[in-house]
Amino acid sequence: MKGTKEHSVSDDELDSVYRFAIRVGRDAGQRLMGALHSRRRELREPDVPEQKMNAVDIVTKTDTDVEEFIHQSISQLYPDHDFIGEESYSKGQSKQYLVTDKPTWIVDPLDGTVNFTHAFPMFCVSIAFVVHQKPVIGVVFAPMLNQLFSACRGKGAWLNESTQLPLLGKSLGSLPKNAPGECIFSCEWGKDRRDNPSSNLHRKVDTFVNMASEPAGRRGLGGMVHGMRSLGSATLDLAYVAMGSFDLWWEGGCWEWDVAAGICLVQEAGGLVTTANPPNDWEDCQIEQAKLGGRLYLAVRPAFGAVDGSETGRQSQERAVREVWRRAVTLDYERPGLS
Amino acid sequence: MKGTKEHSVSDDELDSVYRFAIRVGRDAGQRLMGALHSRRRELREPDVPEQKMNAVDIVTKTDTDVEEFIHQSISQLYPDHDFIGEESYSKGQSKQYLVTDKPTWIVDPLDGTVNFTHAFPMFCVSIAFVVHQKPVIGVVFAPMLNQLFSACRGKGAWLNESTQLPLLGKSLGSLPKNAPGECIFSCEWGKDRRDNPSSNLHRKVDTFVNMASEPAGRRGLGGMVHGMRSLGSATLDLAYVAMGSFDLWWEGGCWEWDVAAGICLVQEAGGLVTTANPPNDWEDCQIEQAKLGGRLYLAVRPAFGAVDGSETGRQSQERAVREVWRRAVTLDYERPGLS
Repeated sequence: MKGTKEHSVSDDELDSVYRFAIRVGRDAGQRLMGALHSRRRELREPDVPEQKMNAVDIVTKTDTDVEEFIHQSISQLYPDHDFIGEESYSKGQSKQYLVTDKPTWIVDPLDGTVNFTHAFPMFCVSIAFVVHQKPVIGVVFAPMLNQLFSACRGKGAWLNESTQLPLLGKSLGSLPKNAPGECIFSCEWGKDRRDNPSSNLHRKVDTFVNMASEPAGRRGLGGMVHGMRSLGSATLDLAYVAMGSFDLWWEGGCWEWDVAAGICLVQEAGGLVTTANPPNDWEDCQIEQAKLGGRLYLAVRPAFGAVDGSETGRQSQERAVREVWRRAVTLDYERPGLS
Repeated sequence: MKGTKEHSVSDDELDSVYRFAIRVGRDAGQRLMGALHSRRRELREPDVPEQKMNAVDIVTKTDTDVEEFIHQSISQLYPDHDFIGEESYSKGQSKQYLVTDKPTWIVDPLDGTVNFTHAFPMFCVSIAFVVHQKPVIGVVFAPMLNQLFSACRGKGAWLNESTQLPLLGKSLGSLPKNAPGECIFSCEWGKDRRDNPSSNLHRKVDTFVNMASEPAGRRGLGGMVHGMRSLGSATLDLAYVAMGSFDLWWEGGCWEWDVAAGICLVQEAGGLVTTANPPNDWEDCQIEQAKLGGRLYLAVRPAFGAVDGSETGRQSQERAVREVWRRAVTLDYERPGLS
């Protein structure tokens, strides 16, 4: 790498990497659509059952093919960069956190795989470029929605390269005075479905019910959010937080390829990403950025100063964070190798 | 009305009504997008605060304007038809069920209002044409997704007038042998947020946790669904059931304008819509169509015969219905005036 500091990337370099990432993201998304279309064609011809693959095979093949396409595209142009892909990582045995300070691509070729197998539009390709553990470029393309989200350090976050996020701009204002009231709260049920009081399923459901209940309910913890949403894609949850459509997203269990690009989107749009689990001193602690591989995330949408000047956008975001922490049950997800 | 039977509508008439409904649906959807865009423009100019409206005002005005546009378009062409619109109905005091056997338009100018205020793409216009209490035409247009769903009695269900639903065709096959396992289960948290054991919130959450839990959990009621989804739009939930993207949708509390068009979509695509609440003899009762104004709905996606010939598509749907009923807590929604 050029640059005065080891591993630093200049703005000029970043600009060209950004254009490249968008191009690769679009191409990869088109390959996802191609896989979906060929599945429609293929499976409508019942005469060739020997060529059929089941949904799991199709996802595995699509995942592998698209990740390989992205990986090769990157290797050709940036042979010195590291690469961590969901598909190749998952084949390994280790769940160690492997991201170093080197310029690193973190890629999920297909986020929302269950949605993809069901042809539900909430799936996407997610490409992040990370330097010194910070996502500095994020590209998320949901081809069936025709929505491309992109962000680059210092350049803001964008929808389809033409509309700056958040979509409603300053009209979003601060977080509601009674947040999480009036908020759209996005959350996912996840894969841990054990039915015992200490399972993540029950910890999540307790939190969900706190967020949904009337204010007087749940021994005063009722959050009375305006809406509860579950899309089945962590990446798109974050994209819609960046867009300002979701006020809050709270989740545990994700891996870095699920969130790296989305975190860049949210931060460049003016949002905040911290940890899902309330610190011991949650009422007055400093609110720190989420660790990339920490598996615990709480995202808050972009915010602007209150009309009456009573607080800044950041202050309103931090207020909302503490109001979620107040109602959040600690989740139980581990991560070896993360300091 | 012409026709040999009172209130009957011939196939020719229906065809022309169908084309009209699609045109009006598209136009109405463009008006929703216009309202969204003008909000972006208007609210980015902080110099004119006196012209600002809050999100609730905007929705009310958009709702009213778009419903009036649809109502007038219908009245000009079909002055003899009845009209029931969400906005005009809600202004009345009565919650009586008002649909007669006459040809009747049932319209929700904006379903997913919370999504609309947050610029989250899952909002739509919903237009149904109902004869003898049966939805025979359904048009649902989600303009921010650019997805137009349409269906007409005997003509099937379509996406953007070009792709027949379900999207994956016969490859969908029957419902999974272990349904609700492997299924995407769609559900909504709704507006009843009372925190007591008999509230609809708690009845719903009990059902949700049954559906999500590992099979051995919940005293054997664990459904281990593949995914839980909540979009915040009953109409789009039904559209995605028709598309085959959601296998199951279970909900109470909707009104006829939330579901009339969607029911037509699901039925024309080959799906099934019955009641959310398990009958007393749920294990072997005949499975009846949901009542239009019954406020309780369980929808199952289109299905085809099992590859091994062991059951028809309908049989697999009915099996799935009973497996949801087994796990569903009875919901408490009333409807005066419905026989």
